[in-house]
Amino acid sequence: MRTLLSSLAISATGLAFTPSVADLPPRGFFPQSVQAELNLETRFKAMPDPARMREAMRRLSARPHHVGSAYDRENAQWILGQFKSYGWDAHIENFDVLFPTPVERVVELVAPTHFRASLQETAVTGDPTSNQQKEQLPSYNAYSRDGDVTGPLVFVNYGIPADYEELARHGVSVKGAIVIAKYGGSWRGIKPKVAAEHGAIGCLIYSDPRDDGYASGAVFPAGPMRPAQGVQRGSVADMPVYPGDPLTPGVGATKDAKRLTVAQAPTITKIPVLPISYGDAQPLLAALGGPVVPGSWRGGLPITYHFGPGQARVHLRVKSDWSLKTLYDVIAKLPGTTEADEWVIRGNHHDAWVNGAEDPLSGLVAELEEARALGTLYQQGWRPKRTIIYAAWDGEEPGLLGSTEWAETHADELKAHAVAYLNSDTNGRGYLGVEGSHSLEKFMNGVAMDVADPEAGVSSWKRTQAARILNGSAESRKDARTREDLRIEALGSGSDYSTFIDHLGIASLNLGYGGEDRGGIYHSIYDDFYWYTHFSDTAFVYGRALAQAAGISVLRLANADLLPFAFSNLAETVHGYVKELQSLRDKRAEEIADRNKAIDEGLYKFTSDPRDPVTAPERETPAPELNFAPLLSAVDSLTHAAARYDSAYNRAVREGRSGVAKQVNEQLIQAERALTSNEGLRNRPWYTHMLYAPGFYTGYGVKTIPGVREAIEQGQWPEADAEIVRAAAAVQREATWVSTLAATLGGA
Amino acid sequence: MRTLLSSLAISATGLAFTPSVADLPPRGFFPQSVQAELNLETRFKAMPDPARMREAMRRLSARPHHVGSAYDRENAQWILGQFKSYGWDAHIENFDVLFPTPVERVVELVAPTHFRASLQETAVTGDPTSNQQKEQLPSYNAYSRDGDVTGPLVFVNYGIPADYEELARHGVSVKGAIVIAKYGGSWRGIKPKVAAEHGAIGCLIYSDPRDDGYASGAVFPAGPMRPAQGVQRGSVADMPVYPGDPLTPGVGATKDAKRLTVAQAPTITKIPVLPISYGDAQPLLAALGGPVVPGSWRGGLPITYHFGPGQARVHLRVKSDWSLKTLYDVIAKLPGTTEADEWVIRGNHHDAWVNGAEDPLSGLVAELEEARALGTLYQQGWRPKRTIIYAAWDGEEPGLLGSTEWAETHADELKAHAVAYLNSDTNGRGYLGVEGSHSLEKFMNGVAMDVADPEAGVSSWKRTQAARILNGSAESRKDARTREDLRIEALGSGSDYSTFIDHLGIASLNLGYGGEDRGGIYHSIYDDFYWYTHFSDTAFVYGRALAQAAGISVLRLANADLLPFAFSNLAETVHGYVKELQSLRDKRAEEIADRNKAIDEGLYKFTSDPRDPVTAPERETPAPELNFAPLLSAVDSLTHAAARYDSAYNRAVREGRSGVAKQVNEQLIQAERALTSNEGLRNRPWYTHMLYAPGFYTGYGVKTIPGVREAIEQGQWPEADAEIVRAAAAVQREATWVSTLAATLGGA
Repeated sequence: MRTLLSSLAISATGLAFTPSVADLPPRGFFPQSVQAELNLETRFKAMPDPARMREAMRRLSARPHHVGSAYDRENAQWILGQFKSYGWDAHIENFDVLFPTPVERVVELVAPTHFRASLQETAVTGDPTSNQQKEQLPSYNAYSRDGDVTGPLVFVNYGIPADYEELARHGVSVKGAIVIAKYGGSWRGIKPKVAAEHGAIGCLIYSDPRDDGYASGAVFPAGPMRPAQGVQRGSVADMPVYPGDPLTPGVGATKDAKRLTVAQAPTITKIPVLPISYGDAQPLLAALGGPVVPGSWRGGLPITYHFGPGQARVHLRVKSDWSLKTLYDVIAKLPGTTEADEWVIRGNHHDAWVNGAEDPLSGLVAELEEARALGTLYQQGWRPKRTIIYAAWDGEEPGLLGSTEWAETHADELKAHAVAYLNSDTNGRGYLGVEGSHSLEKFMNGVAMDVADPEAGVSSWKRTQAARILNGSAESRKDARTREDLRIEALGSGSDYSTFIDHLGIASLNLGYGGEDRGGIYHSIYDDFYWYTHFSDTAFVYGRALAQAAGISVLRLANADLLPFAFSNLAETVHGYVKELQSLRDKRAEEIADRNKAIDEGLYKFTSDPRDPVTAPERETPAPELNFAPLLSAVDSLTHAAARYDSAYNRAVREGRSGVAKQVNEQLIQAERALTSNEGLRNRPWYTHMLYAPGFYTGYGVKTIPGVREAIEQGQWPEADAEIVRAAAAVQREATWVSTLAATLGGA
Repeated sequence: MRTLLSSLAISATGLAFTPSVADLPPRGFFPQSVQAELNLETRFKAMPDPARMREAMRRLSARPHHVGSAYDRENAQWILGQFKSYGWDAHIENFDVLFPTPVERVVELVAPTHFRASLQETAVTGDPTSNQQKEQLPSYNAYSRDGDVTGPLVFVNYGIPADYEELARHGVSVKGAIVIAKYGGSWRGIKPKVAAEHGAIGCLIYSDPRDDGYASGAVFPAGPMRPAQGVQRGSVADMPVYPGDPLTPGVGATKDAKRLTVAQAPTITKIPVLPISYGDAQPLLAALGGPVVPGSWRGGLPITYHFGPGQARVHLRVKSDWSLKTLYDVIAKLPGTTEADEWVIRGNHHDAWVNGAEDPLSGLVAELEEARALGTLYQQGWRPKRTIIYAAWDGEEPGLLGSTEWAETHADELKAHAVAYLNSDTNGRGYLGVEGSHSLEKFMNGVAMDVADPEAGVSSWKRTQAARILNGSAESRKDARTREDLRIEALGSGSDYSTFIDHLGIASLNLGYGGEDRGGIYHSIYDDFYWYTHFSDTAFVYGRALAQAAGISVLRLANADLLPFAFSNLAETVHGYVKELQSLRDKRAEEIADRNKAIDEGLYKFTSDPRDPVTAPERETPAPELNFAPLLSAVDSLTHAAARYDSAYNRAVREGRSGVAKQVNEQLIQAERALTSNEGLRNRPWYTHMLYAPGFYTGYGVKTIPGVREAIEQGQWPEADAEIVRAAAAVQREATWVSTLAATLGGA
């Protein structure tokens, strides 16, 4: 496989690839600046070196490097040295955060038979780092409260709210029970949260082989998939309330910060939680009685899945060391010149759960190569207009700790100076994924067109377009064929962009290649150099492509005459969200009315099987009409303002008018902030962005216009109407701001 | 479970159930006849006795009773005695048919390791008939040609044409290979047919536990599902070409019939085939190399499913005894009075693959109780207007042999005299399923309203309506709420109605309860009395409900003043089919155009993963427009004629005008025949009905307006236009016939 990829890599250096430069100059450059920028980018793109990435990954993944470990600190110091050697002004910032590490872990079936879970990932012959057991963090879920509980066992599918409705209809309660949930279907922290809301006393989470195991390929080390003993570690703190250090919400976890006690921290779980392997889960699941689960709940183990409990009882014991640990954020700067007060920020975390070759080093090694290339250009005389800040975050895995504490500490400066934050995390073979602020959608389409895909001989943009045309829904296919720009996804959560976009309202992006290789080593001891160099981007050509895509993004943001924001795509996207919300209300209204009618008519009773009786669902309050007019009207204002800005921008670029650029750029930096609200979202004020947030009951998955969407989903109708008004106000602020921008720019 | 069902059964005797008599008198009865009919039905409904059904099932399933076995003949004679004891004029008709039985069976993996399949279903403790190995037909597929082949093994999913396209795109050929296909996705006989078309030299078919095993419940004997050693027997003759005896297509297999040689028989498979259990399949599948299959292909075994072949090679040997065997069809009559030349025919087969408690005895014991009840009424003085014929068919399992040979033998009489054929086969708990001629849709809705569901305390109609409202698609839900009649499905194939509807054009129905219990004993030695009385309709209350539904249907057809056909539902249904065909053409046209464009643009190349390359599909000829005008115009005529018939019918019934009934009834008998064509379907002239046929590449699944639909599906565009004209002619004949009927009836 290596041979094949190496030969492909030759064509990926750019020889066979014609970028669309002639058609689309990089956004934000006046005609007089374009050629210099393109020349610079050509030099830049040739610099990232797969061999160096491979070597950096080998070095950084040589030992476990979780928060608080010796090698985490050593890695930070090595990264610091790298930045300095590239000519950057770099330092380490420390924070002291709550990070529990496991002391006791017990899972045992106590009835109808006895079985004690091994809770141990075993070393694999041929994989040289899998045997570093002394330094490995045992498999566990960080921020699980301590507990020692015994109770009946109930299988809850993915453990999301809808699953508990299904359980209730089959007469199965989790009150006083320990639940076992599959990984997937939501972010893991949702599972114990929802279980506790339903009265469960403990929670097990396991990786089912249908979703993450032999079903999709041979298991490690024969193949890339999760073996029977592999366990997914991970945080279960209630991050949809706030991420970062649970003891210092909203402020940096500096030495002298005012801290909550552990008992006061609202994001620690209400019940003990532990992750287990499918090897350990199978005897527990096989012991369950009760009705057989629906087809959509079934996993890939060779057993019949039952709801439980029957005779099955489980004992769960979890105890952690709750001491504070020190974070090592590496922060590096290349100073700007004419616009030194405007900061372009780029980050990737360096901490891992264990050896972390894929997560996070596959992204970090690309970032380091970007930094080396930028440093080299700097040494060769190039100077960016704007200040460039590169960060290697610590503590992402436990809860976005390093980025959150740093951003909270520097919040005022960041709000004043940050142009944009550009994140990456894991990287692999396949398609360039872009998520982020829609005011940067057009900009990122330009970048994707100018980066070659290492396998396909076309641009990353073209390859993604091809996949959307072939595999997308009817709507997505039509979009891919006819819309000028490929759509980017909104940001949910799950990596270090969260604080920047969600809390501070800084335009943000998340970039990474993926989609071709599957793997089953996520957050296990098998995510290591051996695995990555046998089963993922083995030639690091997608590492180079990521360095090219992210590096060019940084270069353009740092050098642009006019910052490359555009608002028509944003307006169109928000309009699409509002239409979705209207459909969602109508769909919910129809569902509720249909269901209530069916309940009244006895239809659930008529179709209940006496051998497996299913009760009717709960009656719900009929959905009222909602007044979407304020939102539609605000979107209309934004659409018109965006069009005026487009005209002004086109004229300014066409005529190369640099006179007002400085003033417009200062205003552009604040444009994303107009979409935030000081009060934040209902019940979770840390989240201030009114368009994007991770779902309160999904965790990673984004909820767009979250105040309105979640109120509708949860049937909180009066709140939905109130949230429409708040969201409309934010969109209206944005419209007013963009109008001002258009006037400033057009007045030149 | 028995207790629960028995208590429910009390309310199902009719106490809590109010039939909708006042609203809807049975169709076809003049006002002066209604009360007598309802009184008769009330007497009839009280007669079928669950205890007798249980006893009959025990007796008939006591030993294996496949075609040619001693107990098959004994059962026929016992059934004959039963009919006679009920007062029927009964006899046995014999036919001599080709029915191969296994002599040698070998399946072995010969590389990369050796494994020999057991091919043996094991006896189960506690199940008293599972150990009758001497009399059991070994697991095999009847009408597999003999063969002894060795070749690489390839997994082909369900083995339908689309699966071979997927294989080709992954570069996997089955030329010279032995394929292994999952049961499901089509009738089993399609699998070796399509495999041979692609150059395979042998075919294995196995029951995957995801579809038929532990995935959906505990396995036998702990639960009802298929155990690891369970095998599905079954015919693999090419029945979409013609069913019945392969040596006597179109004519009865009487002693002196002209026969093809075995070598000439076109419906015998082109390659050897054998069914195996998932216990035997697992080592074969685990040995496969090649790319990993797509998610939709995966089964429930705890392995990674690969296309193959890699190193895997298999040896398959199949040899049968090809001698003729004798069929024993039991035919019983109750003579009609005023309309003795009009025959109402009812049938269920009696032969099984092994002990066959569910298939076919659960249906047969209901039929016998109907016959006993009708005989009792007859002895009490009731006389039907029309002649009633009850049949217990032999040889259904190998290929609808008994019904087909009987119907072919008596084809001319049947075409002249048969009012309708009413079939049943297996029966279980749940919902009344009705498939059949849409001219009887309204009639069957009336029957379903007047039969109580044994569990739900409402009519069988109401329970089905409830399920469709709760679980149906948006369209089906709307239909169920607003349409006067619940829709019945068109007949495909898979039981003894096939010859009546498909070959002779006799209006037909298939009835049976089911949908609540799942099972995995189909065509195995575990389909026996122990299984049925532990896991299915254990109290035989659904047996009674089937006897009530089928018996009342027979009574109404036999006693009606005017035969209860109606044509507006037929016209509306055919109109729906034509709209489906138009959408199908448009969808195929768009797919072909999209795919050709994507091929031309290189999109498949851009998205191919070099580690698992997938080639572009084949370019297809763009779809031309089709001229649906003749069909739409014919449907329009039928719609108008049907409305005129409805008016005439309503007036005739309202005014109780019996004068023209005899003439109208004679014409009504011929109405279904107008939908047939003497030439039959293209390439399979045995099938003469132009609206309904089993699919050439689906087997059981119906293709409505099959000439047109299959031409479109297979991209045979000129043929599609020609078939539209032929289908339109049939619909136009029907319209003309119904017009005549309306005139005859209206002229009274």
